[in-house]
Amino acid sequence: MIFQTATFYIEWEDSAVPWLKIFTNEPYKELSLAPKEILDDLFRALLLIEREMIAYYKPAKINIASFGNYLPRLHFHIMARFEEDSHFPESMWGRKQREGGLKLPDKAYFEKRLIGALKSAFQDEPSAPASPQK
Amino acid sequence: MIFQTATFYIEWEDSAVPWLKIFTNEPYKELSLAPKEILDDLFRALLLIEREMIAYYKPAKINIASFGNYLPRLHFHIMARFEEDSHFPESMWGRKQREGGLKLPDKAYFEKRLIGALKSAFQDEPSAPASPQK
Repeated sequence: MIFQTATFYIEWEDSAVPWLKIFTNEPYKELSLAPKEILDDLFRALLLIEREMIAYYKPAKINIASFGNYLPRLHFHIMARFEEDSHFPESMWGRKQREGGLKLPDKAYFEKRLIGALKSAFQDEPSAPASPQK
Repeated sequence: MIFQTATFYIEWEDSAVPWLKIFTNEPYKELSLAPKEILDDLFRALLLIEREMIAYYKPAKINIASFGNYLPRLHFHIMARFEEDSHFPESMWGRKQREGGLKLPDKAYFEKRLIGALKSAFQDEPSAPASPQK
């Protein structure tokens, strides 16, 4: 786990392509069963991760998926895809196309940038509503 | 195409499982490149389709994906999955598991219900802001 808020957490998938997963802290079977506030956070985090991946890795395409057929618990996959990766243009769940020969920039530095952006977006918000008289 | 608003349209994918696709009218390469108002509509439509599929088909799981590696144009796939479908528990892009033997309720009736729900959600909204004195 690389980041967590009150509503969701983010972790890496072990893969040659940059691949992150967002889980809600509270388990829900389906997207539409999660409360609106949690969905809003989830979509914001999804867009933020996508933007950071695009800025850093300059991928051919971002791929997003939410399946959960093995473990029916809401989560999103966000993957940066490259023409020379193992499966492109198939999905990462499709048929392998080649031995991947990706040369990508430093993952640790990406993670540091991403966590900084997530903190700005999710932790610099006003916290619990203060008394209006204060 | 079964439904269209000012920002997106919906069409069927030809498949044995209930499988719909949402495209933005205006093409964007990536999700995060679409304007916020369009994303809001897209997410609302995604959730509405998911809820309607769950209510009507009672699937084992809803699957959602946005790839676009062949044609880099933002769109979402929403699929209702069943334990006896051709690929379950693999994704529909994964390895086929069996000959599918799905017995599903009437698709035309689902489409009618769905269009009704979409119209309520997207076409009964107040149109252009009226003069506040009216």
